[in-house]
Amino acid sequence: MAPIRNARVIFNSIPAPNTYPEPGKTTVYDDSHTIDLETVPLDGGFLVKTLVLSIDPYMRGRMREPSAQDSYSPPFTLGEPLANVAVGLVVRSEHSAVKMGDYIYGFLPFQEYTVVPDPAHIRPDIFRILEAKEGVPWSAYVGVCGMAGSTAHHGWHEYADAKPGETVFVTSAAGPVGGTVVQLAKADGLKVIASAGSDEKVSFVESLGADVVFNYKKEDTRTVLQREGGIDIYWDNVGGHILEAALDAAHNKARFIECGMISAYNGEPYGPRNLTHIISKELKINGFVVRNLYPKYRDQFYKEIPPMVASGQVKYMEDRSYGLESVGEAIVSVQKGTNKGKKVVIVTENNIGKLGKDGWNV
Amino acid sequence: MAPIRNARVIFNSIPAPNTYPEPGKTTVYDDSHTIDLETVPLDGGFLVKTLVLSIDPYMRGRMREPSAQDSYSPPFTLGEPLANVAVGLVVRSEHSAVKMGDYIYGFLPFQEYTVVPDPAHIRPDIFRILEAKEGVPWSAYVGVCGMAGSTAHHGWHEYADAKPGETVFVTSAAGPVGGTVVQLAKADGLKVIASAGSDEKVSFVESLGADVVFNYKKEDTRTVLQREGGIDIYWDNVGGHILEAALDAAHNKARFIECGMISAYNGEPYGPRNLTHIISKELKINGFVVRNLYPKYRDQFYKEIPPMVASGQVKYMEDRSYGLESVGEAIVSVQKGTNKGKKVVIVTENNIGKLGKDGWNV
Repeated sequence: MAPIRNARVIFNSIPAPNTYPEPGKTTVYDDSHTIDLETVPLDGGFLVKTLVLSIDPYMRGRMREPSAQDSYSPPFTLGEPLANVAVGLVVRSEHSAVKMGDYIYGFLPFQEYTVVPDPAHIRPDIFRILEAKEGVPWSAYVGVCGMAGSTAHHGWHEYADAKPGETVFVTSAAGPVGGTVVQLAKADGLKVIASAGSDEKVSFVESLGADVVFNYKKEDTRTVLQREGGIDIYWDNVGGHILEAALDAAHNKARFIECGMISAYNGEPYGPRNLTHIISKELKINGFVVRNLYPKYRDQFYKEIPPMVASGQVKYMEDRSYGLESVGEAIVSVQKGTNKGKKVVIVTENNIGKLGKDGWNV
Repeated sequence: MAPIRNARVIFNSIPAPNTYPEPGKTTVYDDSHTIDLETVPLDGGFLVKTLVLSIDPYMRGRMREPSAQDSYSPPFTLGEPLANVAVGLVVRSEHSAVKMGDYIYGFLPFQEYTVVPDPAHIRPDIFRILEAKEGVPWSAYVGVCGMAGSTAHHGWHEYADAKPGETVFVTSAAGPVGGTVVQLAKADGLKVIASAGSDEKVSFVESLGADVVFNYKKEDTRTVLQREGGIDIYWDNVGGHILEAALDAAHNKARFIECGMISAYNGEPYGPRNLTHIISKELKINGFVVRNLYPKYRDQFYKEIPPMVASGQVKYMEDRSYGLESVGEAIVSVQKGTNKGKKVVIVTENNIGKLGKDGWNV
């Protein structure tokens, strides 16, 4: 078999602090490489065809100087492909842990085909051979059944200390993390206030069962939270002014789960000026990085969540782009919030699985 | 016996937000009242002579509009005496719980004599009949052996999760809370970095055994923390820019104990702009109000701390003012940090107990 294209997306330059990445400059699509799938040496490893790549907000933090230690993941390497959680299909294998035809979940470089020396090479803490499950497209395994869903599930179970009848406020609630939190909170008997950035997203979050959903671009968060009588739990995906409003609205002994601060990633961060509430209201604020919770919650997660997705009990919204050429724009969209649900890049269209109408798996 | 003066200090007007209270305006000394100690009706209660009053930073938060719910204690009542923790001597009693000659600890109004209907009236959660202990002046019971010491002790035990060899940074370390935290941390085998606002205070904190002590007005906190290799625990008494520096210097999984934010009480609060560290470093930030920890730690505290003070194992610095006339200035001094150690007002000089040289009980 003749060599075929092995396109990839290179981390090409570091964006200035507090600016958005630029497709074609920060990230560059490169189709100059080829690979011979039959003859490429595996050296005891295996060859993976990338099916779907996850595009996540945290990736912005990896686009930094190697010396800058201000994010929880290592920086991307200039001139090398980006990498993130992905689902791939094993095309050939010399490794005892995987066989041809396996669908695997792990950290993959942003390229069409990759020779992996060992599962440990693509993150032993997350590597997994996936089981096909009716109603769960493979793409869901990088979202609601993958890192994003784990983030919601693990963070909620570790830090929410949720009690029925309490009120939680969830930001970025149409995203795969926020949307899952909304559903976990409803399952736990809480009142859910949720915000999202468009009317379409609001409709989706309403379909998840949230009690009060608003478009934060049209309604003032502080006003809504006050009107609703305050909050016991805040799931923070945004930081800044919204965090400030949540601090004002917090009840005594409220729990703040700090999952993300998208407002601080691409602009000058705003510092909330009402932090004295932390003391007077005896708040518990916990920041977390999901990978450190994997050992405690991972088995529980895979046992619970994919079946709930299959049955429709847990819903999600997915926003697909197609082809590695779309990666640059996909990355910007999750930074700006113009995506509609979990952003994924379908690298190879076959074998992914169907979504419901309008991209909602409802 | 003829009626005698019963002077008091009235809460006279609410200071503008973010300004210092003004003696003579915010608080007014009033010696127009009298009391007949022999004939004043007790109605089943008891008559207390105020010996020593505590002056604490948190009192600023009580000087607010009754409607403003932004502090953890109820507002002072305009036209009525201030109130705070105090030690008093029971002069007469019709109540079975106390007898003449008892030294009691509780919340007392800022006046020379008070008829108390019942111990519950002066805060059942803190009321206590004190035991005389050689080497522990009664004034210590409103400081290192009282609310301030409890704050340090209870907060440290509840939230520090201290491990030998870790590093803690303590602010306002010459104060009764910070100074006690320094000594508890050293007893737990930690490296202690401590800051204070004058060279005299620095000397005192060094005498407590802190490893690195600096005058934050002369040395940049961020620079010191970086030079010392970062911190695992931050005991916050100040907030604002110092909190921001501590966030920058925090190690992964550091604990932030939010006890006070003096920088935000009398000026425009500064909002730290590096809160993303909460996520990336997986910080645990706990705010607390000591009274909610009393039930859990109070007996342990009174068993441990006064003997350690008596033996000199726990040291403290006390800054005494004399007479209710001095209350207004005393309040301002703890807001500005011009006090030297735990600020107390000696209302009646007899029976208080001696301090060591220079006001240090060392």
